[in-house]
Amino acid sequence: MLHTVANSANRPSRAAIAAATGLTRATVSALVDDLIAGGLITEHDPAPRTGAGRPAAGLALTSAGPAGLGLEINVDYLAACVVDLTGEVRQRIVEHADQRPAGAAASLAALGRLAARARLAAEADGLTVAGAALAVPGLVTEGGLVRVAPNLGWQDVDAPAELHHTPELAGLPITVDNEANLAALGELRVAGGDPTFLYVSGEIGIGAGLILDGDLYRGVRGWSGEIGHVTVFPDGRPCRCGANGCLEQYAGQELLTTDEPLAAQALGIALAAVVNLLDVPVIVLGGAYAPYFTRLRDGIEAELSRRVLTAGLAPVTLRAATLGTDAAMRGAADSVIRAVRDDPAAWLRRAG
Amino acid sequence: MLHTVANSANRPSRAAIAAATGLTRATVSALVDDLIAGGLITEHDPAPRTGAGRPAAGLALTSAGPAGLGLEINVDYLAACVVDLTGEVRQRIVEHADQRPAGAAASLAALGRLAARARLAAEADGLTVAGAALAVPGLVTEGGLVRVAPNLGWQDVDAPAELHHTPELAGLPITVDNEANLAALGELRVAGGDPTFLYVSGEIGIGAGLILDGDLYRGVRGWSGEIGHVTVFPDGRPCRCGANGCLEQYAGQELLTTDEPLAAQALGIALAAVVNLLDVPVIVLGGAYAPYFTRLRDGIEAELSRRVLTAGLAPVTLRAATLGTDAAMRGAADSVIRAVRDDPAAWLRRAG
Repeated sequence: MLHTVANSANRPSRAAIAAATGLTRATVSALVDDLIAGGLITEHDPAPRTGAGRPAAGLALTSAGPAGLGLEINVDYLAACVVDLTGEVRQRIVEHADQRPAGAAASLAALGRLAARARLAAEADGLTVAGAALAVPGLVTEGGLVRVAPNLGWQDVDAPAELHHTPELAGLPITVDNEANLAALGELRVAGGDPTFLYVSGEIGIGAGLILDGDLYRGVRGWSGEIGHVTVFPDGRPCRCGANGCLEQYAGQELLTTDEPLAAQALGIALAAVVNLLDVPVIVLGGAYAPYFTRLRDGIEAELSRRVLTAGLAPVTLRAATLGTDAAMRGAADSVIRAVRDDPAAWLRRAG
Repeated sequence: MLHTVANSANRPSRAAIAAATGLTRATVSALVDDLIAGGLITEHDPAPRTGAGRPAAGLALTSAGPAGLGLEINVDYLAACVVDLTGEVRQRIVEHADQRPAGAAASLAALGRLAARARLAAEADGLTVAGAALAVPGLVTEGGLVRVAPNLGWQDVDAPAELHHTPELAGLPITVDNEANLAALGELRVAGGDPTFLYVSGEIGIGAGLILDGDLYRGVRGWSGEIGHVTVFPDGRPCRCGANGCLEQYAGQELLTTDEPLAAQALGIALAAVVNLLDVPVIVLGGAYAPYFTRLRDGIEAELSRRVLTAGLAPVTLRAATLGTDAAMRGAADSVIRAVRDDPAAWLRRAG
């Protein structure tokens, strides 16, 4: 029912919700009363009369009430944002600093302090942080363990446990996911992207999130999207992973300024492989690629038109991420909000 | 209901089918009578008594009745098979000849003659060919047009229309699909493969069929799986498609004998890209790769273990196709049988 409210262009009435959901008016009214009491929706004054009949009062998601805390740790920055139930960003803090020398514990302690600031500011503003989601540039297990984050030098890090050492975060539900996955979901849900696309996140490392028919394709073990380790030059530069010629060694963020034509060529070769294999019609360039988009575009498109078998039949659309470098933390915060919307009863039980 | 019969280890009774489908016994009996009359199932004598109670008569798919005609046209052979409702291959004809000089019309006329022989032999054997499916090494549109088959030199070929020129095939429903797609479905359904795998078909060209969670992933325009045009050496050998360094130029069937180590290396590089992107745990090598499997294996696995980021965490299983070079035509015939099983009423209307 919260999705019906969220997806309505206008504030729907109780009657409109009953019609849209197939529930009886009595049931809808009982639910609405619970959701108002729980601070999830608010009931606004009747809208101005636009036609015949008495206009109904309108329901909307509340901009107070539960909110999602989106967190991101990347190789050269920490970030936190708080997003309310209507999808509005209410807090946003980004701190640039190389995380490689710090180690997991120190990085997560610093991120914990950032998250605490964002949470306190949001709660001073009348919000209740319902949970947090953390985006990391690495392989994450189903249980939330960061199995390996090669560019951070992390291995088997229990990130929620580390974050829970921050007193202001103790007890807060925290989930963890790969940053490119969350960024792809952010582009899909927050920015309203195409139903099928590849999101490529250019940071020091390079990851990808694959959205197929409106869903994130995670792979059998949750480790899809490692486009940074697709071979572009088989005997090329050695990579941290032990192989040679990985995309990351030609198109990582640190190489964009010095190796721009090579970065574009390498990206084009790897992306052509994706399109040949998966027939994906749209590629979204995010992270550090977003601000470089206009400079990379021609070089990438030249490789795509040369190397994609079907390029002459149906061109591939290449575009910059709508959310820019915020995509991962926005996707993270949205995942918390979405969980509340999916199961408001669980939230009401916790809040009550 | 036919699936219930097909998937039962023993011949199920009418009562067992009612229990499995949730239909009433009266409904099941009416349906069973129709299906027996239509020649889709047969009712066998009561099974020997194994416990208390009167043993029920057992139902089974008929080995007479409707059958599927599977056809394949590839660069160096034509093939046809007829498979009955129980999945048994009743006819199989393979004719080796280079199709490149012939052109589409002549190749399809020759395949039509092969198909006619298979159909007549099957019908002499008591079967009724319900339809045909054709596997081609190229890009096929939803309407069944072969948009382009680079290694055959075909462009915009209406293959069913050409096959219908053969008098014995006139009026027969004929569908068309990419050979690697049908072969992947054959491995999945006929050979009972893993739910998620990449099938690679090594012929003169190289194609792939991607099975994700038990379904074929076709891509947005139906053109997924073009692994033969994944770049392995960016400045390498020129390909028919206009690009350089495509996998096909290093690991195509004609190069397997002369360039075996290079073929394995090139395959390993391309397959590592697939695993990095999609986290696919199983790779099945089919077509001409199947008989070469033991000689290619070590070279491919060396590249996978070096180039797949998660190789150390969870190894990839590499195996030869169970159906060997028959996978595509078996998958094709199975698709016809499956359509009859999915909608027996449509078959009964046609047959009646």
